[in-house]
Amino acid sequence: MATKLGILAGGGPLPGRIVQSCLAAGREVFVIAFENESDPKTCEGVPHVWMPLGKVGATINRLKAENCTDVVLAGPVRRPSFSKLKPDMRAIKLLGKIRKAAGQGDDAILSVLVEELESENFRVVGADDLLGDVVAPEGILSDRVPGEIDQKDIELGVRVARALGALDVGQAVVVQQGVVLGVEAIEGTDALLGRCQDLKREGQGGVLVKLKKTQQERRADLPTIGADTVRHAAEAGLNGIAVEAGQSLILDRAEVVAEANRLGLYVAGIKA
Amino acid sequence: MATKLGILAGGGPLPGRIVQSCLAAGREVFVIAFENESDPKTCEGVPHVWMPLGKVGATINRLKAENCTDVVLAGPVRRPSFSKLKPDMRAIKLLGKIRKAAGQGDDAILSVLVEELESENFRVVGADDLLGDVVAPEGILSDRVPGEIDQKDIELGVRVARALGALDVGQAVVVQQGVVLGVEAIEGTDALLGRCQDLKREGQGGVLVKLKKTQQERRADLPTIGADTVRHAAEAGLNGIAVEAGQSLILDRAEVVAEANRLGLYVAGIKA
Repeated sequence: MATKLGILAGGGPLPGRIVQSCLAAGREVFVIAFENESDPKTCEGVPHVWMPLGKVGATINRLKAENCTDVVLAGPVRRPSFSKLKPDMRAIKLLGKIRKAAGQGDDAILSVLVEELESENFRVVGADDLLGDVVAPEGILSDRVPGEIDQKDIELGVRVARALGALDVGQAVVVQQGVVLGVEAIEGTDALLGRCQDLKREGQGGVLVKLKKTQQERRADLPTIGADTVRHAAEAGLNGIAVEAGQSLILDRAEVVAEANRLGLYVAGIKA
Repeated sequence: MATKLGILAGGGPLPGRIVQSCLAAGREVFVIAFENESDPKTCEGVPHVWMPLGKVGATINRLKAENCTDVVLAGPVRRPSFSKLKPDMRAIKLLGKIRKAAGQGDDAILSVLVEELESENFRVVGADDLLGDVVAPEGILSDRVPGEIDQKDIELGVRVARALGALDVGQAVVVQQGVVLGVEAIEGTDALLGRCQDLKREGQGGVLVKLKKTQQERRADLPTIGADTVRHAAEAGLNGIAVEAGQSLILDRAEVVAEANRLGLYVAGIKA
């Protein structure tokens, strides 16, 4: 029988899906919800505690007290300003490690956190270990297939997303006809798609490309799309979405594909 | 006596400043204003013609007919979609060259255009050849001086802007406390600063870093800031602005410095 799972719940729908999946399988969970980050719906009706991001010691102690042996980090967490972080002693110790890590980015923080959890003998698992069929497969999932212009836009998007990812800036890029319309930093993919609605050139579509950052800890914050992403991409007037096969998550794949087909977009799992 | 100057007027205030400067010096000008790009105020009261971007042959013929021997490309021009470009025969020939150029970005277009103008014996001059004292000097121009956190933010901003520039994506980045808040693509610096207002973390400020793209034709679209940039950076709650000394333009430097001092921001010309 599977042991109790501690869920460190970042933003977006991913943590909630993990909760539902565990409940359906009869697995016990305990949710650490982060103030200003987690969706309150994630922990409704399940054992949980709200925690400020900086309370790393308290988080670890609570996971131990709850007898969680496995832990998952799910959903994006935006790094707050230092002045707002209010770190406890354990977080201060980690900040030293994080500052030493190159780049000082979100990835460094997550990697240090994963290490720290492992040093306490937690088993840190990926969201894809818990959700069946969530990893993006290779190939075109939709009825629509990317055309020649789309292929070139995807290639440019991959180049730009790689460069951004290497610098720990963001995961997503929108390209149309060889022009980079927008690039994601901390505003998130929905906000990026929102502004691209006004920046789009007349004529043929464009693509949202979303890739794992190069240095990214695989068990934390893999690029994720869902049916909402498809709807927002359609509102932005794009032709489709490309994610990296094997390195990104598609939530509710059947719904994603149905929405893409209804709205006439392509969804492609690419080898990048 | 200086010869007649043809001004290819992109967006923003730079082309207007060049017009004013020439008029003040008694130099004749002829403005090519681009539809949907140029500020109509640029060519008010001076000889000009409105031209669609794709009419390269017509533009060159008009510059010849007006006896312009010198030409300046001033202000940003956003590449329209192919379907809207409606290129004339000469532009179609250039599109072939541009497509061969790596990246297919705006820089490639501008470089090909400069080459083309030179092949017709126009002398292509930079905005900085025409405006005295407009190139950003090295050093701190404002009363406020960047602190330790600002220095680190500037360094990170330079790294990210370099990577973006190498891919011909954009010139500007906003960084706060080691977090990249936003990255410019085609939306422009004002829109970038606008959205960073909501993305800023609590506490210490942040910086706008604006750099020349690595491959950028020096005589076209150098990074430019003006007093409005300072005001928008202040509205976004930033501590200051850093531009590359010798490689970027500061319009109305006295006003920029006065606004920075009034609003408590730093303005730094850096060696990047």
